[in-house]
Amino acid sequence: VNPTPVTTFLAAAEEIATCATRITLEHFRTGFAVERKADASPVTIADRATEAALRAAIAERFPEHGILGEEYGSENMDRDFVWIIDPIDGTKSFISGVPLFGTLLGLLQAGKPLIGAIHMPGLGETFIGTKAGGSTLNGTPIHCRQSVALEDAFLCYNELPTMLRVAPETVGKLMKLGRYQRSTNDCYPYAQLAAGWVDGVVDFDLQPYDYLPVVGVIEGAGGIITDWQGRPLSLNSDGRVIAAASPEIHAALLAAVG
Amino acid sequence: VNPTPVTTFLAAAEEIATCATRITLEHFRTGFAVERKADASPVTIADRATEAALRAAIAERFPEHGILGEEYGSENMDRDFVWIIDPIDGTKSFISGVPLFGTLLGLLQAGKPLIGAIHMPGLGETFIGTKAGGSTLNGTPIHCRQSVALEDAFLCYNELPTMLRVAPETVGKLMKLGRYQRSTNDCYPYAQLAAGWVDGVVDFDLQPYDYLPVVGVIEGAGGIITDWQGRPLSLNSDGRVIAAASPEIHAALLAAVG
Repeated sequence: VNPTPVTTFLAAAEEIATCATRITLEHFRTGFAVERKADASPVTIADRATEAALRAAIAERFPEHGILGEEYGSENMDRDFVWIIDPIDGTKSFISGVPLFGTLLGLLQAGKPLIGAIHMPGLGETFIGTKAGGSTLNGTPIHCRQSVALEDAFLCYNELPTMLRVAPETVGKLMKLGRYQRSTNDCYPYAQLAAGWVDGVVDFDLQPYDYLPVVGVIEGAGGIITDWQGRPLSLNSDGRVIAAASPEIHAALLAAVG
Repeated sequence: VNPTPVTTFLAAAEEIATCATRITLEHFRTGFAVERKADASPVTIADRATEAALRAAIAERFPEHGILGEEYGSENMDRDFVWIIDPIDGTKSFISGVPLFGTLLGLLQAGKPLIGAIHMPGLGETFIGTKAGGSTLNGTPIHCRQSVALEDAFLCYNELPTMLRVAPETVGKLMKLGRYQRSTNDCYPYAQLAAGWVDGVVDFDLQPYDYLPVVGVIEGAGGIITDWQGRPLSLNSDGRVIAAASPEIHAALLAAVG
């Protein structure tokens, strides 16, 4: 049997992720109910309906693959290929009318991130990529900007209020790096990094469905993404992430959190 | 002489503010140079070109009015009507590819905010209003949601990293209010408040061109906007702002910062 080529998976991933547009925008800025999950994070009918649609789209194409999703858990995690779904990354944006929520879809092969997709229904943008094959934004190739020196870097810090509570000294060091530092949220900073608009992202307290789908997008654009110890990201990572456009900036961010 | 009716000013304000769309989007996500101003904040050709276009559009229609803008300063501030311009509120969003930057345009009469406009070129949204005549989003009436209890409120805190450095106890109190607290940036939280998507905004360290143009939008939508002492906003306010959908939430935010 010929193995399925990566390009087939890439095309499928784009089709599957963009299923989210219709479902999310049907609910966005309407009077849906917001429930609270066990961890107090918000969830809506749009999160559940989107994940259900993506799972169905995966099962139709690849019934033999595993799936891990934020809302409906895992199935067939022993398979060689496992899809990772965050139906609405940025539910707080979604419930407050901000079009910066994203649908994240990743494909792992033997536990390693192969393909990543960040689809932004409210912006009409899809960032998708794979380390070996490059990354694109709505079909146009994108690249991390690798020529920006650390002193000129634009750096995005997610979960800054939490980091400030838990690790104030680390935040103090991070705020001294680069030219611009911004308190950011959710997946869009990773898309900005892959598109060459910012130079680094530090994140904290993520789940596998938050960080695994962005790996292919960053690596396909020539960027570096690891945990806070510089190790590759996997299902077992601790949820702390550093992503950077260049080895210099990655090293500086690693040193600041070390 | 018949005085110019407010509806004429409203229509003019919408026309003038939306001049920013073409100019800002011509530069957005291109390789423009970013300079630093005396206060280290970034500025680009797009900020200057947009303000120049808005000033010309005002002067053509109302040569007898005063103008205060972020980039080109003030003229004729002794006049009864004075326009306030922030050509790109959210320059950090603009220079990092995030479509949440806004063009702010306000009209003061005898020093008091009469009309406010928040135009979002990257989203194709214009929020505009006046206390007596209501507020709209792209022509559709909008209202603050006044039925949300404090315990269920979605609260937006701008400039949170700065507030944390300068007033950590205040931030501690704010983070205990409401159901959702978010670290936000720039003008969009005010637009969200007027549209009924969030319930309160606390801001810090603003300039008159940042806060005066949002007043008409908030008040026209039935919301309350004051400084941290509960006083109306004017050219002489200290740049600390509280805006809320209801008197209950306004009072709770005031108490937390007091």
